[in-house]
Amino acid sequence: MILIDGKKISQEIRQEIARETELMIQQGARAPHLAAVLVGHDGGSETYVANKVRACAEVGFQSTLIRFEEDVTEKLLLETVEQLNNDPEIDGFIVQLPLPRHINEQKIIEAISPEKDVDGFHPVNVGKLLIGLPCFVSATPSGIMELLRRYHIETSGKHCVVIGRSNIVGKPVSMLMAQKTNPGDATVTLCHSRTRNLKELVSQADIIIAALGSPGFVTGDMVKEGAVVIDVGTTRVPSSETKSGFRLRGDVLFEEVAPKCSYITPVPGGVGPMTIVSLLRNTQLAAKRR
Amino acid sequence: MILIDGKKISQEIRQEIARETELMIQQGARAPHLAAVLVGHDGGSETYVANKVRACAEVGFQSTLIRFEEDVTEKLLLETVEQLNNDPEIDGFIVQLPLPRHINEQKIIEAISPEKDVDGFHPVNVGKLLIGLPCFVSATPSGIMELLRRYHIETSGKHCVVIGRSNIVGKPVSMLMAQKTNPGDATVTLCHSRTRNLKELVSQADIIIAALGSPGFVTGDMVKEGAVVIDVGTTRVPSSETKSGFRLRGDVLFEEVAPKCSYITPVPGGVGPMTIVSLLRNTQLAAKRR
Repeated sequence: MILIDGKKISQEIRQEIARETELMIQQGARAPHLAAVLVGHDGGSETYVANKVRACAEVGFQSTLIRFEEDVTEKLLLETVEQLNNDPEIDGFIVQLPLPRHINEQKIIEAISPEKDVDGFHPVNVGKLLIGLPCFVSATPSGIMELLRRYHIETSGKHCVVIGRSNIVGKPVSMLMAQKTNPGDATVTLCHSRTRNLKELVSQADIIIAALGSPGFVTGDMVKEGAVVIDVGTTRVPSSETKSGFRLRGDVLFEEVAPKCSYITPVPGGVGPMTIVSLLRNTQLAAKRR
Repeated sequence: MILIDGKKISQEIRQEIARETELMIQQGARAPHLAAVLVGHDGGSETYVANKVRACAEVGFQSTLIRFEEDVTEKLLLETVEQLNNDPEIDGFIVQLPLPRHINEQKIIEAISPEKDVDGFHPVNVGKLLIGLPCFVSATPSGIMELLRRYHIETSGKHCVVIGRSNIVGKPVSMLMAQKTNPGDATVTLCHSRTRNLKELVSQADIIIAALGSPGFVTGDMVKEGAVVIDVGTTRVPSSETKSGFRLRGDVLFEEVAPKCSYITPVPGGVGPMTIVSLLRNTQLAAKRR
């Protein structure tokens, strides 16, 4: 069993991005510049955005954090998006989700220029992903594909079972895995809460991508000997063993499943660390396109 | 075994559309107006466009056919698209594909305003389809879903195996079948040329959607007793029995498969007649939105 070390891979990619940024600057271009819009003071969102800003600094990117209070109007947020769309100094930007209830999230997402939508949530980028055109792929699906690529995991002709049909993981990663690319070219089964014979289906899989958000859902008896297991779950559960009082648990019951796998991602330290790296790569791509 | 009569259903829907159009006109609105852009003189394209124009007349729509010779420039075509985008008298329009090689098809598709893209090929519409937002769904996936709906075929929790990963059928219909809708809510497996154990997978399916363009590919031994079979294939093969010298063959070996099915679409007369109806419905929807 080989542990897929997302932390290590993400550090390697950060170094690659940093080197490329240096090169850009040496050649007279300015550094890639990411802006993040943060509304309110949700603890999770604060942490995510702080990590993104810190990651930018580490790879030599500029970053700008734009903060609004919880009661910001949709109108002002849309104006901000429009300013960022038109600002030649900004290569890409994100609006940290979730937004307060009085704001139409989809309206904000669709207001972002697809060329600066480094989160890859705009319908244009999602549509291009399905069609197989170059686009900004959102962080988690992109991170999963990159892990498969870096570990040279054979996917062509394999049966990949995706558990969970979310718009940000299950559906896009299904399309990426089915596409005529490497990694990709897999037969893909998309399972979800309505799936009847889930255990039977999952146990046929050469590659399992678990993205349903249910701690320990995938048990040893569901996994075929030699399978590749990608665990996207990151549910916070209370824990007396950590200072913070909680720990992250994946969708896979690691102790049972790991011994049967050829490859498996741990939680934490698997897919998680790859997501910020995907955002950095998209931002670099946006900067190169200018 | 119940034969899914696409011809009959499409006529019923045409009547519904015609009635709704009458109502619109009675209420003082103008009739929905579809424009079709046809480049060159390809026999297939001529026929398709002529059928679309005729269908418009039958349901009381206005239609406009814009013709260009094979040597039209991309620039002129883009200008035409722009005019149609801005023309308040046009509710929706299509550019008949394929286009001559010197024209970038994707560039033309992306120039069409998503609000008038009644073919549903613009990335915005494809992206919204994946996300599950209201959008123009392209003709064939939309026709398939409508047949399932009209025949009250249970899809929730069923295992649907889609054969063929094209951008216009396999990929979008996979996403629609997996979505939390009715019809939909199915477990979906997307198979293609690289799939290894295709026969084994297809024989597990409660619903088979064959869209690979290989006549008679799905044979009796691949189909579970009681399965629902949707045959999207329409390959022209030579025939001494027809005046035209050819006949249409589906991807399913009907004689072998039909006796095992609960429901099956014939070719011709199954999915085929539904495609123009889907275009008419999209055009009516576009007209209502104005």
